[in-house]
Amino acid sequence: MDTAREKGNVVAFLGPKASYTHQATLQKFGDQNFHIVPMTSIDDVFAAVQAGSATHGVVPFENSSNGPVLFTLDLFADADKRHPDIVVEAEIYLPVHHCLVGQRAAKALHTAKATDAPSLSQVREDLDTSPVVSGAATPTQTAPQPARPRVQPLHSIKHIQHVHSHPQAWGQCKAFLTAYLKQAEKHDVSSTSRAAEIVATDSTGVSAAVSSKLAAELNGLDVLAEGIEDTQGNSTRFFVLRRRQDVEGHVNASSTEGVNGPVANAHDDQAQLFKSLISFTVDHAEPGALADSLAVFKKHGLNLTSINTRPSGARPWNYVFFVELMGRKRGDGDGGKVNVALDELGRVVKTYRWLGSWEKMTKD
Amino acid sequence: MDTAREKGNVVAFLGPKASYTHQATLQKFGDQNFHIVPMTSIDDVFAAVQAGSATHGVVPFENSSNGPVLFTLDLFADADKRHPDIVVEAEIYLPVHHCLVGQRAAKALHTAKATDAPSLSQVREDLDTSPVVSGAATPTQTAPQPARPRVQPLHSIKHIQHVHSHPQAWGQCKAFLTAYLKQAEKHDVSSTSRAAEIVATDSTGVSAAVSSKLAAELNGLDVLAEGIEDTQGNSTRFFVLRRRQDVEGHVNASSTEGVNGPVANAHDDQAQLFKSLISFTVDHAEPGALADSLAVFKKHGLNLTSINTRPSGARPWNYVFFVELMGRKRGDGDGGKVNVALDELGRVVKTYRWLGSWEKMTKD
Repeated sequence: MDTAREKGNVVAFLGPKASYTHQATLQKFGDQNFHIVPMTSIDDVFAAVQAGSATHGVVPFENSSNGPVLFTLDLFADADKRHPDIVVEAEIYLPVHHCLVGQRAAKALHTAKATDAPSLSQVREDLDTSPVVSGAATPTQTAPQPARPRVQPLHSIKHIQHVHSHPQAWGQCKAFLTAYLKQAEKHDVSSTSRAAEIVATDSTGVSAAVSSKLAAELNGLDVLAEGIEDTQGNSTRFFVLRRRQDVEGHVNASSTEGVNGPVANAHDDQAQLFKSLISFTVDHAEPGALADSLAVFKKHGLNLTSINTRPSGARPWNYVFFVELMGRKRGDGDGGKVNVALDELGRVVKTYRWLGSWEKMTKD
Repeated sequence: MDTAREKGNVVAFLGPKASYTHQATLQKFGDQNFHIVPMTSIDDVFAAVQAGSATHGVVPFENSSNGPVLFTLDLFADADKRHPDIVVEAEIYLPVHHCLVGQRAAKALHTAKATDAPSLSQVREDLDTSPVVSGAATPTQTAPQPARPRVQPLHSIKHIQHVHSHPQAWGQCKAFLTAYLKQAEKHDVSSTSRAAEIVATDSTGVSAAVSSKLAAELNGLDVLAEGIEDTQGNSTRFFVLRRRQDVEGHVNASSTEGVNGPVANAHDDQAQLFKSLISFTVDHAEPGALADSLAVFKKHGLNLTSINTRPSGARPWNYVFFVELMGRKRGDGDGGKVNVALDELGRVVKTYRWLGSWEKMTKD
């Protein structure tokens, strides 16, 4: 590891340990050549890569059920111009299997203190009744046919009064939480693994966390239910961050005429193998400015795969737009489709930024 | 009020009382002709309008600093097809001034119970020191020049250990919270007014809420700081929901040839006075499908003002797109620009939905 650090291969990821980002990081950088360092916020990961204290950063970008991670998008928008050099170098897909983790009722009864009388009686009541609750959410006017959860609890969870997790997890486990934990109080914390840590410190046993199985193991907790996410195939996409100058070195090198020229041309024909992320702002006073910007990509046959809008941070009701498209930017002046489109984009928008090109990974 | 209810003018809004949505509702429907009813979720507002138990619904759609309300977007996406008839009939802009509300330190000392010893000593310590903390956030690598909050607390807030609010409020008050309440634990609750209710029940006085001044008044709390939002001119846009059949009646009537024909033509020339919301899905297997869809709007000279993307809910990594544009749909077969564009859009997308046209309001 020290060798890795000396060689400068430091990967900063959104921690703490056992977070989904940690798992994604291990999937990509899980060998001895990288020194892997947890950071406390997505912001810290961006800052570490920008400052050069890490060569790589790994941050969550988008969940298949819940949409983009707004905090990451806002850091790419970079209203404060703190990360001018950050680009995406790669993407990582990680299947997400949420678990409900905590203490089993019998164990909770054993460890509960005398001062925790209400919890204790609650736990006793649980032990007298069926091991699991019904799993049928009550139909309401709002949800006449509530979605049935995909799994049942492995153990009784009637003693659970508090559930801790990252806000994104609530949206991903709606059916299970509605069916089994509607009355429990939800507490937002900074990560799913932090949630497991908090639950491990609760001696009354009435708290649970929505987190990974790995987090349960690391914190000595029981898995009370496994795979509680609504959608089968739920996965999260992570981005590997680099400094622009480090990546452009590669791009320039690989497009040098005579060395990799033919390869570069081959890549151009294989636009479907690469993706790029671009942000831009338009003059809101000019009608059609957004449509004109998007028309540039169409003109050059670049297939847009997603569009996102965030407040620009500059003035109220001003936006920064993000497009992701198939294809990649090549070395300066290389004349690839993305390069030409970016040049043209620059003439119709107020500002724009190339935020990286990378090889497309499969989604599952 | 009963007369209003008999006449069928029932407005469902996202409650509870004193919520920002309540204030927006009063701004638009604040006379005797409407019976105003709080609902517990945005979902419930959609359901009440769809079911016809309310003639109008008011929901938050977008904040100038924080972006769209994702939950509202997802209800418009309507993956479960529960709200096929919901359209937007009007928009309301409301300036948002967040306050930190709770109990002043002296008062908290007075009301704190003997059993709350740690809180009590904390409060005493506060009284011995300066009335406010510094307001200077510590520069870090992440934020070398942290934004300075726009206001100072009106009273000491050093006794505050817990802050409750709606998740959107954290993003809107970053500078103040970072400068003055970095160590306080943040608790997400369903609304800013619910946060104030919770704080009112905390006899130790160490809790505060980020909410409106009105919520402080209704709950007998002190305003500890006023206008703590980051951006001057922070405002939220709300949508008034109707059933499509109720709105289309109007549109058809006003476009009847010979009666309102000239007026309708005049409106067409005044596209800048109206906005429309449209959602659509594309075939993700078809390259360029998204660009083709957007090109339709450009072709007909329709100015896109925003674009949003949300997971479609149908399959992982499938999206529903939302565009907002200047102009309005008129009666069926009326041949307005928006009508023609929608017909054409239908030929390039997988599905689309007109989600309403309404008169543009000013932003401040």
